[in-house]
Amino acid sequence: MRYSKLFIPTMREIPSGINAISHILMLKAGYVRQLAAGLFIFLPLGWRVLNKINTILKEEMEKIGAQEISMPILHPAEIWQQTGRWYTIKEEMFRLKDRTGRDMCLGMTHEEIMAWIASKEIKSYRQLPQVWYQIQTKLRDEARPRGGVLRTREFIMKDSYSFDIDWEGLDKNYKLHAEAYHRIFTRCGLKYFQVESDPGIMGDMESHEFMAPTPAGEDDIVLCDHCGYAANIEIARSQLPTLSPLNMEYKEAHTPQKKSVKEVAEFLGLDERYFIKTLLVISEKNGPVLVMLRGDQELNEKKLARVIGEFSFATPEQALEILGVELGFVGPVGHKIKKIADFSIEKGIAYVSGANKKDYHLKGIIPGEHFDAQWTDIRKVKDKDKCPKCGSSLRIEKAIEVGNIFKLGTKYTEPLNAYFLDKDGKEKPIIMGSYGIGPARVAAAAIEQNHDNDGIIWPKSIAPFDIEIIPLNMADDKTVSIAEELYEKVTEIYNSFADRHMEVLIDDRDERPGVKFKDADLIGIPIQVIIGEKALKENKVEIKKRRTKETKKVPVNKAVVEIVNTYYETY
Amino acid sequence: MRYSKLFIPTMREIPSGINAISHILMLKAGYVRQLAAGLFIFLPLGWRVLNKINTILKEEMEKIGAQEISMPILHPAEIWQQTGRWYTIKEEMFRLKDRTGRDMCLGMTHEEIMAWIASKEIKSYRQLPQVWYQIQTKLRDEARPRGGVLRTREFIMKDSYSFDIDWEGLDKNYKLHAEAYHRIFTRCGLKYFQVESDPGIMGDMESHEFMAPTPAGEDDIVLCDHCGYAANIEIARSQLPTLSPLNMEYKEAHTPQKKSVKEVAEFLGLDERYFIKTLLVISEKNGPVLVMLRGDQELNEKKLARVIGEFSFATPEQALEILGVELGFVGPVGHKIKKIADFSIEKGIAYVSGANKKDYHLKGIIPGEHFDAQWTDIRKVKDKDKCPKCGSSLRIEKAIEVGNIFKLGTKYTEPLNAYFLDKDGKEKPIIMGSYGIGPARVAAAAIEQNHDNDGIIWPKSIAPFDIEIIPLNMADDKTVSIAEELYEKVTEIYNSFADRHMEVLIDDRDERPGVKFKDADLIGIPIQVIIGEKALKENKVEIKKRRTKETKKVPVNKAVVEIVNTYYETY
Repeated sequence: MRYSKLFIPTMREIPSGINAISHILMLKAGYVRQLAAGLFIFLPLGWRVLNKINTILKEEMEKIGAQEISMPILHPAEIWQQTGRWYTIKEEMFRLKDRTGRDMCLGMTHEEIMAWIASKEIKSYRQLPQVWYQIQTKLRDEARPRGGVLRTREFIMKDSYSFDIDWEGLDKNYKLHAEAYHRIFTRCGLKYFQVESDPGIMGDMESHEFMAPTPAGEDDIVLCDHCGYAANIEIARSQLPTLSPLNMEYKEAHTPQKKSVKEVAEFLGLDERYFIKTLLVISEKNGPVLVMLRGDQELNEKKLARVIGEFSFATPEQALEILGVELGFVGPVGHKIKKIADFSIEKGIAYVSGANKKDYHLKGIIPGEHFDAQWTDIRKVKDKDKCPKCGSSLRIEKAIEVGNIFKLGTKYTEPLNAYFLDKDGKEKPIIMGSYGIGPARVAAAAIEQNHDNDGIIWPKSIAPFDIEIIPLNMADDKTVSIAEELYEKVTEIYNSFADRHMEVLIDDRDERPGVKFKDADLIGIPIQVIIGEKALKENKVEIKKRRTKETKKVPVNKAVVEIVNTYYETY
Repeated sequence: MRYSKLFIPTMREIPSGINAISHILMLKAGYVRQLAAGLFIFLPLGWRVLNKINTILKEEMEKIGAQEISMPILHPAEIWQQTGRWYTIKEEMFRLKDRTGRDMCLGMTHEEIMAWIASKEIKSYRQLPQVWYQIQTKLRDEARPRGGVLRTREFIMKDSYSFDIDWEGLDKNYKLHAEAYHRIFTRCGLKYFQVESDPGIMGDMESHEFMAPTPAGEDDIVLCDHCGYAANIEIARSQLPTLSPLNMEYKEAHTPQKKSVKEVAEFLGLDERYFIKTLLVISEKNGPVLVMLRGDQELNEKKLARVIGEFSFATPEQALEILGVELGFVGPVGHKIKKIADFSIEKGIAYVSGANKKDYHLKGIIPGEHFDAQWTDIRKVKDKDKCPKCGSSLRIEKAIEVGNIFKLGTKYTEPLNAYFLDKDGKEKPIIMGSYGIGPARVAAAAIEQNHDNDGIIWPKSIAPFDIEIIPLNMADDKTVSIAEELYEKVTEIYNSFADRHMEVLIDDRDERPGVKFKDADLIGIPIQVIIGEKALKENKVEIKKRRTKETKKVPVNKAVVEIVNTYYETY
């Protein structure tokens, strides 16, 4: 392909407020443009990268026997009403009416429609298992689109769905997908982790995310380098070292105007770990709930929500009305309402907490003796906590979610009546799984992980082109003729491959060498072949690896072989 | 690919009310399913066909230098408001509001968004020409979705857009597209015509449609087999033989209760051609308008709308109020309102028309003498009319519109401020064209043109597979081992081609031969290779061409060569 025939509108100045490196570089290098908040246009280079990723997705899906199909974007409301998600999903769903006034929505995902078609077409165990996938547009009205193509309102997704007669079948398809995802992200050149995750709106069974670590990530993942434990912080667990008991008399202490654990701990000269943080929340399902954590721990709101459903923190007025005490002096002893305690609070150890009386705290509270509660895991894992599996030190990294896999069981098939007749003639619900990858996020994560001050450094497998030939002076006949000859010969090699690798771009623009160098580094093609008059005098051209910036001069008559060799040694 | 691993839910009974053959066969053969009115799911076989067509589209677009990009489906209203189409397009546009209350619409087409991005990114003549295309989903809230995938509310479209510095550039890109479209439809195995067309909502300049003739078509096209004149009936013209003048005195004739041309002609014993049909219409822009056609001609409403804008026919009450006469006795003489006459009405010849008086007609009306009007072409071309170019006889065929090309000029670029600086430093609007192909319609048209009572007969280029191997008895070891060996060998050949032709399906299901034969003919793979015990006794297998049903027995050890030869001689 010729640079002069390709629309690559590079930018020098990026509008303010754009922070993610992948966003900045995709704009600068002319890969994408924004149409409106969370709506992106993929220009030729950007679209080439997505196509490369999509090809890898297709190949790996085919390998596990998944069949490509295509579903509409526009869905009738009734199908989403049958599973209830029409009601439980709020503003994130784009809704509209058609000309007859019928309620419709734009597909955020396709569990409903896939289960619906399965309910129509699958009657017998003989038709199972099935795995169907599509690479198709999803729409979600995100509250805060951000990070360029990282979180958008419209995006392409590879989504696959498995249908099995039993849980063993689901386990198998889940595993096949996990393995395919490992191959996909490895082929795309990403560093990534498979982590345990919260299934969120998908269901409440096993699920994993594939996370590409980078400071631009929106998610925090918890990692154990020793045993490999890995989980999204939303569900990550940890061990805490056991506390040595303190000798503490059960009695009130006057703590005027000291409310936070930190203040009271300092005032009383006690370690924060010997405190119980008592929070009052109002749950939609359960009403007021007292929530207890060890003084040095923080609440993980997602974990709590999984225990008591959606909730909000009580206002000072609500606390006074419900408990008769000011926030800051609330403690676990005496109240009759539902209580939830984090595992960090150990039975048999004496703690300090609010005395349920203004300006007083109560010392010597022994959990299990002075109050009871539902013990569970609701705390946020912190850096250097101990691994729940092996006890080694945990670390936390920021990461981009590039894929996810969910066991759905019968969550969608039962309400949509997707039943089949088993071998024994019994009607059973189909067991389902769903599996997603966002190719634009893969591209953005690859840039976040592979760039330098000059621009993008594409992993070879997903680069828009593999080799860029750069004739420095278009007015010099020899430069141009050698560049064109190399372009032709390498293109010939490219055309001879069934899987089309070694695709060549030639920068045939009548621009200064400085501009060509700058643009080449910016757009990030892995291998540059520089044709300059100076080297040509020695009958040489220069081959440069974008990643390492290593260059070597090679004789013109060996250039093709050297380009091929460099291609194979580049990753 | 193995039939047993492929989801092909064939159907025996088709719901009533489904008439188009392509719709029936796509359902029967398990290619598509309907999710809701005008919303279709493409199952594995259907999606394979679309992918084949899309690959051809991409190859031909690349050949003319078009660059693939991708635009969002969701558009902000403002951009459509700038060109006015937000207001002129009615219920066909899906509209919605996002969570912030902002007006949005779903893309019916992308002239607006393409011109918008051009306005942002193209500054200089040096960046032109550009041709951008995408293969992407469009949404249109059709009043009457019909014919399966022929007219749907959501569909994939290949849409390309050209941007030029002048009209010569547009002419060139228009011609390049027309040529590419000829190659595309030829490669897809379609019979088709390129016809002159009405640009409709796109603009008011030159445009052409590519029409695949079939009785299932929604459009009528007018064809001259002699000179090649071809036009959509909406804009087709014709010549009429000149009338010989009749000697007719200018005077009223009493025609009690005779209102239609037919009735009055019979009553007066005169040929219908000597009548003027006078219609009263109410135009939104022009108010009441008298419209005149020769007695034997019919009004083409689209043509009239292009002259006077949107209009409706006057009710009897409106006629009485405006003209003071009952419909049926309205004539062209005497009224002061705007008059439009079709070219079929010749000046200098005497005609009969209404006398503007109940139960009377006026004879001897000479156009140009007794009334004047704006003469134009507003009649519908009829079968056997004379060609406007060469005078030969015209014929009319039903056809499916599979593609269209439009010259847009500055219709979108001016309102969206897409200007560039020309060589001479002057600011000029970009000259634009747009070009569409609907791949699902190509597939449906191919079926309409290629089927028999047993099912689909795919043109080789767009078949979901090229060759189907059919072992008749899966319990017979020899049958299975020879089938598998052929499957393996032909697949090897397939994998060796860079352009992936000769793709093989093997019907490895444990089904009776009758079922396999029936399904094979239904799904329509061009070549069947039948492995039966009887032929195997002579060490032979049978190769059958789906189109002609010709079969030949070939020795097992020559089967691969014979399959390859048959593949190359099949179209």
